Amino acid sequence: MRLRDLPTPAVVIDADRLQHNLTTMSAAHPGAALRPHVKAHKCTELAAMQYAQGHHSFTCATPREVVGMAEAGWGDDLLLANEVLDPSRLSALALAQRNARITIAVDSAETIDAAAKAGLREVLVDVNIGLPRCGCRPDEAGRIAELARSRGLEVRGVMGYEGHLMMVDDAGEHRAKVDEAMQMLLAAHAMVGGEVVSAGGTGTYQLHADNRRITELQAGSYALMDTYYARLGHPFQQACFVIGTVVAANPKYAVADVGLKAMGMDHGNPSVETLDGNGADVWFLSDEHITFVPHEGVAAVGDRVRIVPAHIDPTMAMHDVAWLVMGDQVIDRWPINLRGW
Amino acid sequence: MRLRDLPTPAVVIDADRLQHNLTTMSAAHPGAALRPHVKAHKCTELAAMQYAQGHHSFTCATPREVVGMAEAGWGDDLLLANEVLDPSRLSALALAQRNARITIAVDSAETIDAAAKAGLREVLVDVNIGLPRCGCRPDEAGRIAELARSRGLEVRGVMGYEGHLMMVDDAGEHRAKVDEAMQMLLAAHAMVGGEVVSAGGTGTYQLHADNRRITELQAGSYALMDTYYARLGHPFQQACFVIGTVVAANPKYAVADVGLKAMGMDHGNPSVETLDGNGADVWFLSDEHITFVPHEGVAAVGDRVRIVPAHIDPTMAMHDVAWLVMGDQVIDRWPINLRGW
Repeated sequence: MRLRDLPTPAVVIDADRLQHNLTTMSAAHPGAALRPHVKAHKCTELAAMQYAQGHHSFTCATPREVVGMAEAGWGDDLLLANEVLDPSRLSALALAQRNARITIAVDSAETIDAAAKAGLREVLVDVNIGLPRCGCRPDEAGRIAELARSRGLEVRGVMGYEGHLMMVDDAGEHRAKVDEAMQMLLAAHAMVGGEVVSAGGTGTYQLHADNRRITELQAGSYALMDTYYARLGHPFQQACFVIGTVVAANPKYAVADVGLKAMGMDHGNPSVETLDGNGADVWFLSDEHITFVPHEGVAAVGDRVRIVPAHIDPTMAMHDVAWLVMGDQVIDRWPINLRGW
Repeated sequence: MRLRDLPTPAVVIDADRLQHNLTTMSAAHPGAALRPHVKAHKCTELAAMQYAQGHHSFTCATPREVVGMAEAGWGDDLLLANEVLDPSRLSALALAQRNARITIAVDSAETIDAAAKAGLREVLVDVNIGLPRCGCRPDEAGRIAELARSRGLEVRGVMGYEGHLMMVDDAGEHRAKVDEAMQMLLAAHAMVGGEVVSAGGTGTYQLHADNRRITELQAGSYALMDTYYARLGHPFQQACFVIGTVVAANPKYAVADVGLKAMGMDHGNPSVETLDGNGADVWFLSDEHITFVPHEGVAAVGDRVRIVPAHIDPTMAMHDVAWLVMGDQVIDRWPINLRGW
């Protein structure tokens, strides 16, 4: 099958670019120094490539991602880097411990209680290092660890996510702010103990490679990329596109069949280019359509276009399947099988 | 089961409010005067309630929606109000004609050719009445109809969508602009012929009830509603929420487990309220979380919150299931079974 035979909208992954991205990240964070985040792709076939690259521990954002990874056989060391209270899904995670090593983030008495009651065995203390989301205060981390241990849970260490620092433009300021966040995490780790200090993301991968204070990086977007992370100028290439078909065209604008139900919209509009690389101005997206104006020439009904996601994670979560391509050839069909919660 | 037993994030539909909305719209556009748009809910169980209300013809946005509606038994008169070129999905539509009446929008020689080749029988000429999306120019509509008839297709009439006029604040200006768009559609209809003049949406339902120039209204959002359409002050009530659980809380803010993978984000952030109706300021959403500050008091870990979608259509498309509730009681589980393309 060729690219132009795919039913659209179609998520396609360029196999060569994906491999380039995996190799580039593995060079900076080899083996256990990288705990790839599966939330960015939700695809066990892609996780298999990360596993083959030597990364045998994974980060997950939902119980569904953990259970799916365990079922697929990639359960050596799965971290649910998120707080969960639901007894039924925690029990499912506890059951999955039969075939997988599962660690869950905790940051409060309530999340510790829920994990212990469900029969989970291992936790990381989630520490807030500046992003207003989950995680305990750094000065509470020791108390949280003690509480977890008193409930029979093994505390493997700490995690923190400097998500508010992925996009600092000035290199010096970026380094200084990440340094400050890592001081908070390391101070918490000194109180908590354990062998794991887990943090970071695609936006801070180089800073952590330059200065190894953490034991593992939680990065996900680097594998497929999007226009948001592309602004950082890192050596990762755009490896994922949504292919659309022009269904209406006139001299003023064209309309393709990729709408806001097929693209994560929280980071704004995606970009559009023709298959030969000509760019376009995007006017707007509606449920099933994107209206755009090619920079050169006019589009014709039936033309194919490549839409580049502004945010890869929610885009992948909207699709059932991704097609692996090499040039114009479709070489594999990957179910996006970790969707949902 | 009660509301607080649902695994979150959970789409819930308030049965009484849904019925109120269905009844209110049916009073303005009874029976065949309304062709409910299933793209807003993607749920055949909800379509069944619209059918029971006396609306036996439906609007769809994707081949998947048409095929799913036909399989569910609601195939009396299904309109695919969208242009499709893909031969495989057009063939699936042609096959579904065994048990359903299917009409497809066409606006070009290419879309007519694709529909005719696949064996589809009936079409509407899609006319552009001001929204820069699909649809032929009004003065081309006669030629498009003629071309369709020359290919053996039955031309049932015209459709147009004044989507750019859903949100005009000034009532006089709103009426005048919709009048102008309808003049374009009626001029096209005079050239095309046929018994159908299909247009409109939730935002213009009252204008079309006051002045019946179209034969049927294509409205979808009215059934479940969102904060975007709520601004119009129409008598439809918010009938759909995403229930979340507070997984982290401190005196400054709280975090619930409903993120941007569970909410359509193209219309901006959703709203948040506690189950007893207390509002909140939303700071931001990330993949799996919403960070917010309650207007009164503080939230506690384990609290439930109601998130009100800013855009209902993409929100429904992100979930597998909706729970029908009456007060605190969960009374049914509806698969959101028309997702995808």
